[in-house]
Amino acid sequence: MSKRSFPLSEVYRLLEPGPVIMISTARKGRANVMTMTWQTMIDFEPPLVGLIVSNRNHTFDILKATKQCVINIPTAKIAKQAIGCGNTTGRKIDKFEKFRLTRVPASLVAAPLIAECYANLECRVVDARLAEKYNFFVVKVVKAWIDPAEKSPRTLHHHGKGVFTIDGKRIRMASKMP
Amino acid sequence: MSKRSFPLSEVYRLLEPGPVIMISTARKGRANVMTMTWQTMIDFEPPLVGLIVSNRNHTFDILKATKQCVINIPTAKIAKQAIGCGNTTGRKIDKFEKFRLTRVPASLVAAPLIAECYANLECRVVDARLAEKYNFFVVKVVKAWIDPAEKSPRTLHHHGKGVFTIDGKRIRMASKMP
Repeated sequence: MSKRSFPLSEVYRLLEPGPVIMISTARKGRANVMTMTWQTMIDFEPPLVGLIVSNRNHTFDILKATKQCVINIPTAKIAKQAIGCGNTTGRKIDKFEKFRLTRVPASLVAAPLIAECYANLECRVVDARLAEKYNFFVVKVVKAWIDPAEKSPRTLHHHGKGVFTIDGKRIRMASKMP
Repeated sequence: MSKRSFPLSEVYRLLEPGPVIMISTARKGRANVMTMTWQTMIDFEPPLVGLIVSNRNHTFDILKATKQCVINIPTAKIAKQAIGCGNTTGRKIDKFEKFRLTRVPASLVAAPLIAECYANLECRVVDARLAEKYNFFVVKVVKAWIDPAEKSPRTLHHHGKGVFTIDGKRIRMASKMP
């Protein structure tokens, strides 16, 4: 794979901007992927992420059973594929096949990385206490990968009802925040 | 105020893109505001939002005590003020004064709306069970306001270390998602 290892201490910089993400999972040798955007950073290091995965989604059952997933971050270049994965269910089709996404084995979890995404975060579920009430899973990123060729990734942001914005102008401001 | 009421069922469309937000609070007649970006939608209606507010922040104590806040969404026009509020602590200064932000009384909570933000969401804390372990608060939006004059709000997205992107190109894709 052409990706290189990415420091765990920097993972928040990938998720904090609120991009559309793709969650890949695997169970009994069968991989699945869903597209979503209800997520938040919870802690810097180890990086903890909160994911809201509806119990109507196939991924909810797999996450509960396997306690593993990969958070993949697409750029606008693969918007069609990302949104296609959000419009279909893995209960009926193999989304990797249908949307021509490439599975790459992860290093620490059974779920595959999506090669076409510029960043991939291997995760383990560490807390599912609020899964029943709020569909809320706390996951820990255990290994992160990035595409070194992607110098200026333009991610997607979902505004609902088929409207997305793509990252625009980049600015620098004096900030005391990490 | 020049804002108009915004339907609660549409609130996810404001937060789902992952903008930088400003949380205003009030205790004993003293208002405060902090800037943050670790938040997620949890449910559509009533709109539930998850906020990660560090226990090192003044706002953590106020949220726990008052169980009320307002989520204000700034555009890039007030980036300097928004980031200034993130670089300072309300323990020592009045941020509304220092950054010349205008307090507007909310309708259902004691915390003030920030007039300069294009959207304001009045919230009540409905679950603080994970506040100790993860700094995680579940809040319910009880009233929402929007600036009807702001036709194309460009929000900020934080990439860490003083780097922000501003919303860029808007695209439409056929989506079955809400």
